[in-house]
Amino acid sequence: MNEFEVIEKIKQIVGNKIIGDDAAPLRVGNKILLATNDILLEGQHFLDYFPQEFLGWKAITVNASDIVASGGQPKYVLVSLLLPKNKTTLVEKIYRSIKKACQYYGCRVIGGNISRSGKLGIDIFMIGETKRFVGRRQAKPGNSVYLTGPIGDSRAGLELLFMKKKAYENFEKILIEKHLRPVIDLKLGQYISNHSSASIDISDGLSSDIYQLAKSSRIKIKIKSEKIPFSKELKLFCKKYDHNLVDFSLKGGEDYRILFTQNDKLQMTDDKFFYIGKVVKGSGVFLDEKKIKNKSFDHFSSS
Amino acid sequence: MNEFEVIEKIKQIVGNKIIGDDAAPLRVGNKILLATNDILLEGQHFLDYFPQEFLGWKAITVNASDIVASGGQPKYVLVSLLLPKNKTTLVEKIYRSIKKACQYYGCRVIGGNISRSGKLGIDIFMIGETKRFVGRRQAKPGNSVYLTGPIGDSRAGLELLFMKKKAYENFEKILIEKHLRPVIDLKLGQYISNHSSASIDISDGLSSDIYQLAKSSRIKIKIKSEKIPFSKELKLFCKKYDHNLVDFSLKGGEDYRILFTQNDKLQMTDDKFFYIGKVVKGSGVFLDEKKIKNKSFDHFSSS
Repeated sequence: MNEFEVIEKIKQIVGNKIIGDDAAPLRVGNKILLATNDILLEGQHFLDYFPQEFLGWKAITVNASDIVASGGQPKYVLVSLLLPKNKTTLVEKIYRSIKKACQYYGCRVIGGNISRSGKLGIDIFMIGETKRFVGRRQAKPGNSVYLTGPIGDSRAGLELLFMKKKAYENFEKILIEKHLRPVIDLKLGQYISNHSSASIDISDGLSSDIYQLAKSSRIKIKIKSEKIPFSKELKLFCKKYDHNLVDFSLKGGEDYRILFTQNDKLQMTDDKFFYIGKVVKGSGVFLDEKKIKNKSFDHFSSS
Repeated sequence: MNEFEVIEKIKQIVGNKIIGDDAAPLRVGNKILLATNDILLEGQHFLDYFPQEFLGWKAITVNASDIVASGGQPKYVLVSLLLPKNKTTLVEKIYRSIKKACQYYGCRVIGGNISRSGKLGIDIFMIGETKRFVGRRQAKPGNSVYLTGPIGDSRAGLELLFMKKKAYENFEKILIEKHLRPVIDLKLGQYISNHSSASIDISDGLSSDIYQLAKSSRIKIKIKSEKIPFSKELKLFCKKYDHNLVDFSLKGGEDYRILFTQNDKLQMTDDKFFYIGKVVKGSGVFLDEKKIKNKSFDHFSSS
């Protein structure tokens, strides 16, 4: 079974259609809460020689991204820490980093748990709040498709970390920071809640996540490669290391940008967003009229 | 740093007095939600040769126990599964066991996550609901102290599993099942919410958990060994394997019984509960007038 078959199996067993969205909406009284969970695990999402000072920040951001993509604001956090023996001193570093991220995103740690483990892991459970939940299933033909920022930077940063270079150029340092310390703009949550028909965060790579959105909404998405935004640092990286910019970015992961759809009659008031294509009737995702495969980003499959 | 020093450090960093209770109370509109998290991790909470069919059940029960001890009812579950390569088929077994437990406890899986990992792990986040949150800090001098059932069975079951015997006697099979498949009585949540001043679930062993409650409430607890309830199976086990019944049980863990305190003027209407002692002014825990040490149960420290 691959990842998607496993998720289908789980849905079948627990009998819940919601599983598969970025966060689960819960109606509590007259409020809508959002619950989500994401983990950073050594060997899977980071390696032991990576800098550790932003691990807590990143673990919180990864979850905040799911809440924001669902149209919400982060509120409460539980931290499940998997801690190798003799690494007790890491607790303080990780929690200080978590604290900083929580202050930035306006949420707070309300509880958690520490377990001994062979590998370091930070498993975060986040509860958010929204006025209107936005999932992956309501993109409609005629909608426009937007990205909230450039993609591919995080994958470039990861590849640079793998190189273990003694010295990095400035643009390389910027890409590495994009990987180690991603940042989400909280205002996106409010925008998405007010305006979007569907949305998903780009955690597994654009080609995989856009495919998930198209499949969940039972529509076709057509995007144009010339419209996909790239940072100047990524352009320098792809030139220096001989990568095709578009191919490299489509299979990038962990950018924590958001892909959303909205009625194209709505005036786009914010020039931070990048129009990349259209929703039409049908199925699948087409890049410059060519069908793209659902190829997800697997952190260390090639390392 | 030991476990308690680490928790003190974390409290200091995140600046939250609530951390340390079984579950964190959240006021949402006119409701009180409870959030908690507990993990079962291979090598730490179970070993690879233990039967796996109740792992999902146990992971849910461990969390339900925190919700019930706080006076609540389980409602929603997120499942973070750490899955070794080539063990994909386990997903189905674990989720079926989770589903059964959720049906039993009246909660439902609303989301989750799967990560590749060297060791198998089931990290559960549970949200419950209560009319009145009960923590560890409101036990008062004059209160009576109760246990909701016999203790020590789970530790005996674990020791029996360690023995890897080819055949087990019937009473031994019962003790093993107590370890592998603990069950919580949901009605306890309502009772505790209505009547208790403080409560804690017995997950680390009575001597450790009762010490935590006494410390959190800044009171002294005096208990009598003759009042502690033991199962007939545990009595047989201690006789056969030459253990002191009281010593063995005080350091047992994972019984998922609840220790609670209540005003002694309240009539105890339920004979399921076992009176074991009194809350008085002072500090520390005394068994038969002798101070007991805060010795917590460490799953595999001696294995």
